[in-house]
Amino acid sequence: MARALEANELRVDGLIRDLGTFHGKMLRPALVLLVARALGGITDLHTRLGAALEMIHTATLIHDDLIDDADVRRNQPTAHVRFGNTTSVLLGDYFYTHAFTLVAGLKLPDVTLRLVETTNVLCRGELQQQCVERHTALSEAEYEHIIYGKTACLTELAAEFGAAGSSDELRKAAATYGLACGMAFQIVDDCLDFSGDPDKVGKSLSTDIERGRMTLPILRLLSGASPAERTLHERRLTAPTGPDDVAAFREAVIASGALASALKTAKDHVRRAQEALTAFPAGTARDQLQVLAEFIVARDF
Amino acid sequence: MARALEANELRVDGLIRDLGTFHGKMLRPALVLLVARALGGITDLHTRLGAALEMIHTATLIHDDLIDDADVRRNQPTAHVRFGNTTSVLLGDYFYTHAFTLVAGLKLPDVTLRLVETTNVLCRGELQQQCVERHTALSEAEYEHIIYGKTACLTELAAEFGAAGSSDELRKAAATYGLACGMAFQIVDDCLDFSGDPDKVGKSLSTDIERGRMTLPILRLLSGASPAERTLHERRLTAPTGPDDVAAFREAVIASGALASALKTAKDHVRRAQEALTAFPAGTARDQLQVLAEFIVARDF
Repeated sequence: MARALEANELRVDGLIRDLGTFHGKMLRPALVLLVARALGGITDLHTRLGAALEMIHTATLIHDDLIDDADVRRNQPTAHVRFGNTTSVLLGDYFYTHAFTLVAGLKLPDVTLRLVETTNVLCRGELQQQCVERHTALSEAEYEHIIYGKTACLTELAAEFGAAGSSDELRKAAATYGLACGMAFQIVDDCLDFSGDPDKVGKSLSTDIERGRMTLPILRLLSGASPAERTLHERRLTAPTGPDDVAAFREAVIASGALASALKTAKDHVRRAQEALTAFPAGTARDQLQVLAEFIVARDF
Repeated sequence: MARALEANELRVDGLIRDLGTFHGKMLRPALVLLVARALGGITDLHTRLGAALEMIHTATLIHDDLIDDADVRRNQPTAHVRFGNTTSVLLGDYFYTHAFTLVAGLKLPDVTLRLVETTNVLCRGELQQQCVERHTALSEAEYEHIIYGKTACLTELAAEFGAAGSSDELRKAAATYGLACGMAFQIVDDCLDFSGDPDKVGKSLSTDIERGRMTLPILRLLSGASPAERTLHERRLTAPTGPDDVAAFREAVIASGALASALKTAKDHVRRAQEALTAFPAGTARDQLQVLAEFIVARDF
């Protein structure tokens, strides 16, 4: 990724190089490369696709952090804090289109189409998430649809890209694995917003309550509450009067068991991911994919 | 474009449909279709490429208006005024990726690559423009490089797409025509920021001085000024004390002849565009392309 982003261009070099070396968990490249290793070996194609996916993920983070007004990501000041809002909008656009250029240069039309159409679904998921903020009547099916868009469609594609060249059955198994990992990952992320340690997670927390973002722990709290409790929770979520409301809401999510219930759903997705791997040939790489799926729910960052 | 943006998706339909019917001058589709007509006829490929280019252009406008905090575009409230900043960032991303999906679906790898790499140059041009705000030492060559990125690379591609399937010579002539039209178009846009009537232009004006955006009329004022005048102009541009400074700067650009000088450069680009057309077969479509180039500098909107 850093190599692909080497620029020799008027005034923007530093900006781009800086973010190109800005590592996170690298989940999407890990999915591409581990699936490839499990199914026959890593080629230059896989490396390039992994870099492109991480670049797209970075683009979404740049725009997300700007939108959420988040100050810290990966334990560093976010792009909009460092470079300003304006530059962040354009830098995100630059990263998206750079990733597409990297892949379109392979001249594999099906691969390029899958990448751009998936990124379009991703952008739509982000938009939908914005559109349902503070919509306390959101259903779990709608929540799943949204997190498929904002997270799981890209991890699904990452695993599918890892299986490029394999049989239809293996490609389908890989996609199922990637999708389930993505769903689990996003639900855990939504849980960490309540239970995480900001230093370990590397970003600002409790932002979902403040923004009225309808994540699974919140939906589970609302669906399990008595009518009177629900009215109170909804008031705290849609019209908080101050930090006490946010703290009380957070406590209720934990004390009610809603957080544990959401985490259990994440574990169900992990089990589904691991089941899909039974179609893969046994070996070290498959074992690593099993561990990767475990890690998604076990992580505290 | 409206047809391609028909959505049947959770919560975002209205948002997307609304902007899909949001017409501007349609310069980029006009370039594709007129060049195609001049060189053998319009096919479904050209229509689709024209729609994709207009969608990309719309995406840049959504992000630009947000960045510039412009309230009015095409005589209507801009997207960020109607939907909020957050939604605007994501809506721009959605439009970009939707355009790429529309084109990647054609499975013509060279066409897709040209589209995404050009859009990447476009995003870089926008970034560079931000990075040189209030840099009064900007050279004219740097300015040209930037407006090639932010405008002319896309009109160059539009004309090149119109010539898809033609000989190398004709494709090159079309690209030269589109590039020169784009350079002229952007310089005229930069001039209209000083001399335009906001009702006719359909957007807020005098914003370039306020933002310290180094456009050609401004560069010409600075390069033609005496050292003492230049110091005053630079102070007004980089540290304006209020609206009087902006008004005085605007007057100086007009009174010094800098505006007329920039407009002359735009006309030189139009002449270059028209010369390129001599390679095209004579006929009505070529005549219309001649008129289109004239219109770019003659327009007052």
